[in-house]
Order: sequence, then C-alpha cells, then structure tokens
Amino acid sequence: MNDFPDSIHITEEGPREGFQFEKQDIPTARKIELIDALADTGLKQIQVVSFVHPKYVPQMADAEAVVAGIAPRDDVEFIGLWLNLQGLQRAIATERLHLEGSVALTASARFLERNQKRTMEENLQQQREMAAAYKAAGIPISRGSVMAAFGCNYEGPISIDRVVLQVGDILAVAEEQGEKIHVMNFSDTMGWATPRSIREVIGAVRNRYPDLTMSLHLHDTRGMGIANAYAGLEMGVAHFDACVGGLGGCPFAGNRAAAGNVCTEDLVFLCRDLGIETGVDLDKLVAVAELAEDIVGHSLPGSVKTGGSLSDWYATRGDGGRRGRIA
Amino acid sequence: MNDFPDSIHITEEGPREGFQFEKQDIPTARKIELIDALADTGLKQIQVVSFVHPKYVPQMADAEAVVAGIAPRDDVEFIGLWLNLQGLQRAIATERLHLEGSVALTASARFLERNQKRTMEENLQQQREMAAAYKAAGIPISRGSVMAAFGCNYEGPISIDRVVLQVGDILAVAEEQGEKIHVMNFSDTMGWATPRSIREVIGAVRNRYPDLTMSLHLHDTRGMGIANAYAGLEMGVAHFDACVGGLGGCPFAGNRAAAGNVCTEDLVFLCRDLGIETGVDLDKLVAVAELAEDIVGHSLPGSVKTGGSLSDWYATRGDGGRRGRIA
Repeated sequence: MNDFPDSIHITEEGPREGFQFEKQDIPTARKIELIDALADTGLKQIQVVSFVHPKYVPQMADAEAVVAGIAPRDDVEFIGLWLNLQGLQRAIATERLHLEGSVALTASARFLERNQKRTMEENLQQQREMAAAYKAAGIPISRGSVMAAFGCNYEGPISIDRVVLQVGDILAVAEEQGEKIHVMNFSDTMGWATPRSIREVIGAVRNRYPDLTMSLHLHDTRGMGIANAYAGLEMGVAHFDACVGGLGGCPFAGNRAAAGNVCTEDLVFLCRDLGIETGVDLDKLVAVAELAEDIVGHSLPGSVKTGGSLSDWYATRGDGGRRGRIA
Repeated sequence: MNDFPDSIHITEEGPREGFQFEKQDIPTARKIELIDALADTGLKQIQVVSFVHPKYVPQMADAEAVVAGIAPRDDVEFIGLWLNLQGLQRAIATERLHLEGSVALTASARFLERNQKRTMEENLQQQREMAAAYKAAGIPISRGSVMAAFGCNYEGPISIDRVVLQVGDILAVAEEQGEKIHVMNFSDTMGWATPRSIREVIGAVRNRYPDLTMSLHLHDTRGMGIANAYAGLEMGVAHFDACVGGLGGCPFAGNRAAAGNVCTEDLVFLCRDLGIETGVDLDKLVAVAELAEDIVGHSLPGSVKTGGSLSDWYATRGDGGRRGRIA
C-alpha cells in the first residue's frame, strides 16, 4: 500500500550536522553565508547550530556569533540543537532562534553510554528535567525523538518493541508537563535503516499511536538513504531531516566512514518526481550545495548536483513538474 | 502493493561497464584478477568484456586476451557485449563465452544518432540482421533490451508508450526468427529513472506482456539507483544488472558526471535485508569492491564497502540473515 503525502516538511540540518563534522576551521562568516543562502531556497526550517561544549565539538564554539549574523526573515524558522540545560540557556540567550522543546531518548544503551555517558534511566531522568525547564521557560514541548532507532554499531539491531516503548516514554515525559507531542522523529543515527525496517518501525509506532506525525532523520552510510526516504514516503511520512549536499555524519557514531545525512536536493528531486510538494526551489538548492562544497573545501556526496536536476525537462511536463499520483 | 521476489538474478557488469569508462590503462592481468574474484562470490553471470572497435573504447582492445585468461569454472556464465556482426564474430571466436542473442532497441532517437549513428528504423533493421545472424550461428535469442527507457539527456523524457511499442518490436524481431524472448531489460542509460517511472514503465509493459520477465539496468546518476531497485523489487522485478563498487558509467551518455551503475554490493545488502536471495556472499563481494578500487586507482561510489556490511549482526538474526517478508 502506498500512501504518499501531498507535501513534506523538510528540516534542513546541513549547517549543524555538516560543520560539526568538518575537521578544518570554517570562518563564521562562511557559515552564515551558507545559512542565508539556504534560507533563500524555500526551505522553511533550518537547524543552524548546536550549543554543545567546544571541547567536544570545537566547530560550534562560534554558535552565538553564527546566530547573530543570520539575515533576519520571517518566512524561515531558524532552530538550534542542545543536549542539556547549559545549551538550552545559550539558545534562549540568542533571542533569535525559534525554540521548541524536544524530548529525545536513545534506543541503544551502549551508544548512549559512549555518546552521552548516561544510562537509559539517567537519560530518561535528564529528559524529565529538560522538559521541566522548557515548561518553566514557556517553551512548548512539541517534538519527540528516538535516536539510534534502527540499529547501533555498538549494540546491533534495535528491537521494534524498544522503539515503541521509548515513544511511550517520550509522550509521558511531555504529558507530565501538561504538554502534547505532535511530531515523533526516528533517527537512523548510524545508518542501519533499510526500507524494510523503515516500514516496520513506522508501521508499529503508527499502530499504537495513530495520531502521531512521523518524522525521519536518515543517514546514507550504507547507500540506503534515498531508498529509506522513499519507503517512508510510501508510508505517508511527511517530515524529513536532510542536509544540503549530503553534509554531515555523527563524529561519535563509530562508523568506519561516517556517511552524511540524506541529501536535501536528492530528496527534493525524488519528491518533485512523485508530485510531492516541498516548497523548495531545486536549482537554487543545487547552487547552495555547490556553495557548501566550496565552504568545506571538498566534494560532498549528493548526486543531483553533479548528475543534473533535469529541471528544464520537468518544467515541460506542463504542470510545473508535478505529476499525478502513482497507484 | 508489494510483490517482492523470493530471489533475484544479478548480471554483474563491473568488468565491462567499469573498465570501458576508465581513462588510464588497466593491465589485462588485473582485469582477469577482478573477474576471477567476482566469479568466486556466488555471482552466476558476469559480463566480462565488450567487443567494440578500439578506436571508440580503447580499454576493450584486449577483450580476447581477457576472456582467454579467465579461470575456467562451470558455475558462472561469462558473457560479452557486442553491437554489430564484427563484434559477434569476435565473441564467437573466443569459444569461451556463454552466447545469448539479444535484441536491443533504443527509445531515444537522438541518443541513438549520437551513440550509434543510426536512425530508429536503421537500428531496427540492424537488429533484424543481428537476429538472423544469431539464428544462423545457432545462438538462442532469449533477451531483449530497451535502452534509454526512462529518459535521455538529449531528448528528454521518454514516453511509456514508446517503450511499450519497442518491446513489441523486439519481440517481433525474435519471432521472425522463430525465437521467443523471455527476459526484457529496461536500461536507464542516462540515470533518469525514478521510483515512479520504474513503477510506470514496468507496470505498463507487464499489463501488455504479462509473461515477460522484467530486468533493470540502473545507473546512480541522480542518487536514485538503490531506490529505483527497491521500487523494481516492490513490483516483483527479479533480474538486475549491477556493477561491483558502482563501477561504470557510459562514456557517450553526455552526463555532466557519468555516475556509475547501481552498486552490486549495495543491492545485495538491500536484498539480504528484505529476505531476497541473491546467492552472493556479501563480504566476499565487498572485498572485491575494494580490489576494484585498487585496480582502477581511485575510490568507487558504493556505500556498503565503506559503511560496513553488518554481516555479523545479520548472522545473529538466526535465519542466516533472512527475515520474514514485509507486508
């Protein structure tokens, strides 16, 4: 059964996922240049920085300066990432970010231990404290996230039952604060997802929580990224995180080669062909992918930027590139 | 509706597709080394050379020497590619190749003109002459192929009706010789295919010719390769061409970056996860992909070879890596 959405919401994470992974210094001005260019493509939400300790992610030491430098605009939400109260305070202090509280659990105990030095129970408790802090600061808690939801390089496959249980825990943490989570993100932190496991996880969670909006954070570690997105689209998933050019990778994920996130312009290319609206100008985005390559100083894995967007041909389809739905 | 096959047949085309695309000289012995290594992975059919004029594809000038050097074995079919009678004669003269007659038409008139200097009608006539030559040589005509079936960099999108018509023409050419084609290959020569167009083309041809076995030849020019294979698998397609490491690309296809064929080991990874038998030892194949990189002297686009095969974890699933079918 295919249940393609009419449109999808993309959270562009290239600036955050991409730059944190780069080894060389990237000038603050160039980070801002990329963000401003992304904001001009039709993307509606861009994760621009993470507020983490510079000891662990030195590339984000200039997070405040980056946020301060972004050209103001009303049509794009600029968001940040934080993992603890100190990070949240920094995000609030910028006075420029769209603030949303997120309850995030990690489905792999071993990854959690290595990545955040916490047990599952400590992590749940820490998320409760974060939720209380959001409530105290008047920040709505609208989003949940299950990290390593499809598999873990340290722990192996992750059971679907554990993912479903963690979704329940996440919803409960928000409810304790009188808040209701609408969007639940499933993160393939280490590139284990496959079209099969996408279908199984989304299907199992939807069975139990039919009103939740599903969201996918995909990596392309084993070449399944776009196929996984397609499997998600078939299941009606309408929220995706993606990175321009395929920027990114998790420096703590222990991959032999930490492949980047699913590439935004390749995802947009797929959606345009399926007649699924993204709101993004594909050719502007391809130009930004080329800018991103210039900024990081090496080629990026995205394919459409080298293969060609075919926009001239799609335009001749007469419906602005959109086609009828497929059965 | 998903209609996954129980098993798929892979035609490995890395040696032919891959080496013809490389600019540097590759010693004959190293080509043979790759072919012998591929033959030891469980692959059942390997396209090892093309018999084309060295003026156009200098890398294939040693085709006869390559074929002569392959270690003999009964469990693998070694096949070649030719485009005309001279090429066929060379293939026959090797006395070592598995010979199958193929009727191949090209759905793009402009690509045909550029690539083979023929009109559609001349090409059809030439295929009739080739079919007569197969018959005269006692070579069965068992396979058809529609090139550029999904789109063309020179002509744009290709109508599904034209593909269906060409399938009919191909079947008729074989029938004129009293032969019956069983496998019909659809080649995404220039990387235009998408999951949607895979479904549309396969669906339309199957509607008209329900008994034909469908086969896909996919490139990864725009990052859709594995997603296209997945869309084909969902439609029950059980024959795929693929190239180890993602070797290949068509030197005449006019891509800005002629991305390689869909990567064999990534396809095998996808199939193993879906419980679809390939007969291939994935880890042996990954090692051959690394060998291929060593031989061509640069990295290749396949992902599983860098991301990791996860075979240890799949083995712990208790069913040798195979899972129940997904709904």
